Amino acid sequence: MIDKVLGDIDADLDNSLSRLFDWLRIPSISTDPAHAGDCRRAAEWIRGDLEAMGFEASVRETSFHPVVLGHLPKPGAPHVLFYGHYDVQPVDPLDQWDAPPFEPSLDEVEPGRKVIRARGACDDKGQVMTFLEACRAWKATEGGIPVGITVLIEGAEENGSKGLPEWLAANKDALKADYALVCDTGMWDRETPLVTTSLRGLVYREIKVRCADRDLHSGSFGGGARNPIHVVAKIIADLHDETGRVTIPGFYEGVRETPADILEQWRSLDLSPEKFLGQVGLNQPAGESDRMLIEQIQSRPTCDANGIVGGYTGIGSKTVIAGEASAKISFRLVGDQDPQKISDAFDAFVAARIPADCSVEITRYGTSRAIQLPFDMPALATAKAALTEEWGREAVMIGAGGSIPIVGDFKSTLGLDTVLIGFGLDDDRVHSPNEKYDLSSFLKGTRSWARILGALGGKTA
Amino acid sequence: MIDKVLGDIDADLDNSLSRLFDWLRIPSISTDPAHAGDCRRAAEWIRGDLEAMGFEASVRETSFHPVVLGHLPKPGAPHVLFYGHYDVQPVDPLDQWDAPPFEPSLDEVEPGRKVIRARGACDDKGQVMTFLEACRAWKATEGGIPVGITVLIEGAEENGSKGLPEWLAANKDALKADYALVCDTGMWDRETPLVTTSLRGLVYREIKVRCADRDLHSGSFGGGARNPIHVVAKIIADLHDETGRVTIPGFYEGVRETPADILEQWRSLDLSPEKFLGQVGLNQPAGESDRMLIEQIQSRPTCDANGIVGGYTGIGSKTVIAGEASAKISFRLVGDQDPQKISDAFDAFVAARIPADCSVEITRYGTSRAIQLPFDMPALATAKAALTEEWGREAVMIGAGGSIPIVGDFKSTLGLDTVLIGFGLDDDRVHSPNEKYDLSSFLKGTRSWARILGALGGKTA
Repeated sequence: MIDKVLGDIDADLDNSLSRLFDWLRIPSISTDPAHAGDCRRAAEWIRGDLEAMGFEASVRETSFHPVVLGHLPKPGAPHVLFYGHYDVQPVDPLDQWDAPPFEPSLDEVEPGRKVIRARGACDDKGQVMTFLEACRAWKATEGGIPVGITVLIEGAEENGSKGLPEWLAANKDALKADYALVCDTGMWDRETPLVTTSLRGLVYREIKVRCADRDLHSGSFGGGARNPIHVVAKIIADLHDETGRVTIPGFYEGVRETPADILEQWRSLDLSPEKFLGQVGLNQPAGESDRMLIEQIQSRPTCDANGIVGGYTGIGSKTVIAGEASAKISFRLVGDQDPQKISDAFDAFVAARIPADCSVEITRYGTSRAIQLPFDMPALATAKAALTEEWGREAVMIGAGGSIPIVGDFKSTLGLDTVLIGFGLDDDRVHSPNEKYDLSSFLKGTRSWARILGALGGKTA
Repeated sequence: MIDKVLGDIDADLDNSLSRLFDWLRIPSISTDPAHAGDCRRAAEWIRGDLEAMGFEASVRETSFHPVVLGHLPKPGAPHVLFYGHYDVQPVDPLDQWDAPPFEPSLDEVEPGRKVIRARGACDDKGQVMTFLEACRAWKATEGGIPVGITVLIEGAEENGSKGLPEWLAANKDALKADYALVCDTGMWDRETPLVTTSLRGLVYREIKVRCADRDLHSGSFGGGARNPIHVVAKIIADLHDETGRVTIPGFYEGVRETPADILEQWRSLDLSPEKFLGQVGLNQPAGESDRMLIEQIQSRPTCDANGIVGGYTGIGSKTVIAGEASAKISFRLVGDQDPQKISDAFDAFVAARIPADCSVEITRYGTSRAIQLPFDMPALATAKAALTEEWGREAVMIGAGGSIPIVGDFKSTLGLDTVLIGFGLDDDRVHSPNEKYDLSSFLKGTRSWARILGALGGKTA
């Protein structure tokens, strides 16, 4: 059964590409008001494609760009919510593109390696179409898809998913499912598929320390007056101990140890500092010294100062003691770390380091919990097996270091766990000029989803 | 003898003020090229005044505004070099002046308290004239001044004494003296005169720490990549121990302990944190915890970060790990601290804290040694006694926290120690709108110099 579906996918590749190219030609840049009409066109295009496949599909209004909702239920089978986005990043600087960003082409970049080149080729139109082409192939060869599906394609992902959380909350009934599937992530490398099993959460703070009520001359006051840059520097320096651990009391509460078999798999990936950090000019892992680099960047919580400023920062010298200094400091969370508890503990940590005659103002930016799938979640094992079968390499199960806020909303608003599978590569240049998507990502990605859909619906034979 | 001189000063006050007002009417703003002609006029004015008193005086060219040089030798008596400046600060914001800055007036600000109001009233025309009016009174009543005098009035002090160090080096022969006198400092308070016995030196550095070769996403790299803000913060935090001492090895080499009697005098001044730090909104001395505040701000060396910047410093949040961060860090030196040794020790201190895969670039700004007069220098004791006699209060002998670079040049180029005596008050608003000079500063300042000149020349009876 699956072989027929896969055969159809291979045979239909030219048509699949033709459909994707049609969608890619629509410059649906969500952050640019001038392209609002294009966003709607991109939404209408995908609605039409869903309808052609037999989905009951509609374009729904939100407070920003519309979303596209498609339904194709399958009584008795699991029901999944598939999420993607039709909007793309801006294209500037335009002069750095080798070809017009909205005139997609298939280019052979080296013998035997072809790529789809266009804005959105990977992020996220190409990725979305791997899923929909898999659905189409099931429909065409077997008359139906093995699982029930709700498709949600939004148009503001590149604009912080503006309006979507509220729309989710207002449309819970239309979004019921057993779990969510998202195709907006990457592979481990060109040959190795990957299932993203966790996303780190975030706590972000800005502290502004005020000492004297004006800038002071360091000759007249130096040695007597408190220097707010010293206060802020001490806070930042105190945040880590010599082993790289964060020192805030209670910070590691809720951090789970990774199961030994998963750790062993990560170890076998052999992510060397030279390879991972070398790409940005570094080679010394900077995190907890008793953890592998691969843990440091995705399964362990972190603390980073994202910005700092105080005093004279222009050219040359100025003998000033600043009246105030500030820093932006954020934490990446994992497991069950409680953003509220950590926020409060950080605030107390800072307050304890403010001299009696100084003050601090703390600005709280967004916080989000980490997302952590149970490593033994059945859909995860099923997806992993299907990916392993397609690629001939065991799929890696690993977390992502960053956050995808909407996945948090799927959990908190809709109660859904999310399985994140994608076929992007590190060199896809998403958000940059000359974005591309490997043809192998597109074709084998489609074949992967076909296998996953079959496996999730119990139709693998 | 001295009584006649003092009587003449009192009787001639109206004429003294008239002369000062003439000089104050010339807008000799040295930083503004449009006022270059006024600077020359101010130089010519003082040359004329010196000639009228019998000095051999001339306007001498430098690479910037001219200096005025006057000679009146007295064989057999000590010879002093008197230094002051004829240039003034700019006047903006002009709308904050209660009267035109170059139309001097004598205003009664409270019953019995009059002030001279104009740009330069204190800094430095008023102060210079206290010395010259004392000379004039000696000449008028006794036919001569008790010491030989070389007067050097420069025109670029408010512009970093541009051109003067080179001019000094080229005119050493014309500047021979036993020691220098400078009238450009302040009193302890309205009733208490002050002799400045030391000036702190300066070492100023900028460090730029580079880690990754670009800004990184804190989701992808957080926990793995070194954060340069952390590196810089750690360096700054490490510069002081918990008692406020600077931790750089060898930093305190050359710092002399203050003689017990001087320390006792400082203690009796009772400079409370509330009074000194309270004026800028602070009240906790921030320096070495085992030192009095009055030591912290003038007789002890310090270290301050004068500026810091790195990462995202705009509005809101950005999850970035910066590629680089930088800080400006300076040291105030005292006693015999060697700027070169401290510069080198700082550079090594920084280098030891740079991770193996990061780098640091250190920019060296100007350095200067501290100036420290021997507390037992005879001219100092003589001047102190004369001041004490005039004001009826023991003159305070204390250091200034800042630097007056030209005093360093007097020492290094001309081999002269400098006795710094001035009559400015904290509320004189030098460099600000509505600059003033108390009439009591002007009159009793003139009387003070008359006594000092007499005492230095052995003519006190």
